[in-house]
Amino acid sequence: MKQDATILRIETAGPGLTEITREIAEFVARSHVVRGVVTLLCRHTSASLLITENASIAVQRDLVTWLERIAPQGAAYDHDDEGADDMPAHLKAALTGVNLTIPVSGGTMLLGTWQGVFLAEHRARPHRREIALHIIGE
Amino acid sequence: MKQDATILRIETAGPGLTEITREIAEFVARSHVVRGVVTLLCRHTSASLLITENASIAVQRDLVTWLERIAPQGAAYDHDDEGADDMPAHLKAALTGVNLTIPVSGGTMLLGTWQGVFLAEHRARPHRREIALHIIGE
Amino acid sequence: MKQDATILRIETAGPGLTEITREIAEFVARSHVVRGVVTLLCRHTSASLLITENASIAVQRDLVTWLERIAPQGAAYDHDDEGADDMPAHLKAALTGVNLTIPVSGGTMLLGTWQGVFLAEHRARPHRREIALHIIGE
Repeated sequence: MKQDATILRIETAGPGLTEITREIAEFVARSHVVRGVVTLLCRHTSASLLITENASIAVQRDLVTWLERIAPQGAAYDHDDEGADDMPAHLKAALTGVNLTIPVSGGTMLLGTWQGVFLAEHRARPHRREIALHIIGE
Repeated sequence: MKQDATILRIETAGPGLTEITREIAEFVARSHVVRGVVTLLCRHTSASLLITENASIAVQRDLVTWLERIAPQGAAYDHDDEGADDMPAHLKAALTGVNLTIPVSGGTMLLGTWQGVFLAEHRARPHRREIALHIIGE
Repeated sequence: MKQDATILRIETAGPGLTEITREIAEFVARSHVVRGVVTLLCRHTSASLLITENASIAVQRDLVTWLERIAPQGAAYDHDDEGADDMPAHLKAALTGVNLTIPVSGGTMLLGTWQGVFLAEHRARPHRREIALHIIGE
């Protein structure tokens, strides 16, 4: 049984999803863990992680639009230290979550055919985001 | 320290929750892991996993009704390749999440008395769903 | 490779967030696991776990207000055995989730600077809540 860990750094371009499936798969391959489980933690409170459809860019657009409707800018928030997009970003991160755990078999994540792993940026401006990766297995 | 893994297949009957606590418990028992952690990944983008009350069927009905209100059909989505229930299903899956990690002790998941593990089907029609299960421990 | 586990007990004061980062960090330190992964499971269906900003109490207030708007009391629910706050509490727990998995390195959780781990109480009255903790690593 062995472990490996790293910090993945991703530049975002403002609100939207960035697929990181390939980067995670490369980490899994480098670890030489054939069977085990990989854990991801987005180290921020205004960006998050989710698994959703990897085929249609329209899904990503609809998701971002829906999050804006669920946690709108312009609502009355106490917390607006960093601007009008600040508190909605925290809400969207709380809704989608900042961590994922994915089983690995045959050296590959057991994602479904249409599943991709995405970093969701919820702030209005581009950011540099860090995701802690950890794998354990054999 | 040892591991075990399998794919659990569940037939759903359209929108609603299917309790899978017993199936996961059987996998834990078969693995002979007494102390460890079990990871579940729903391999789909229009079905998801959640832990909620196992006692009252009304909780499940209210949950499904609420998800329909939060992510309604009939809203204007770009993505409708597979019908009006397609994009709402992706949203509901993003909201509830597709993975769970549950500590195991004494050969049993450390769920609370009223907690059940559920597969949530978000598409209008029945589907055959796959859940990747992984356990590690002693 | 080794494991450790415990049950953390937290008294809540009604609706709101209780930070438990220190309690989890103490469990990690006591386990003498320097590198690994820690798993948390809230053993309830009307309280949940989330990672959000640890600096501003206004973020916590806004989050609670927003959850009340998303899953309001007073909506028509089938399930109200334990009162008007019962079903909204289940919905809020389903939305935010009851489990977290956090990588550990150098004996410390790899949380971001502004991230705290919180227990979210969704019932109107104070409750005694249990969180199952598990760590595996070296």
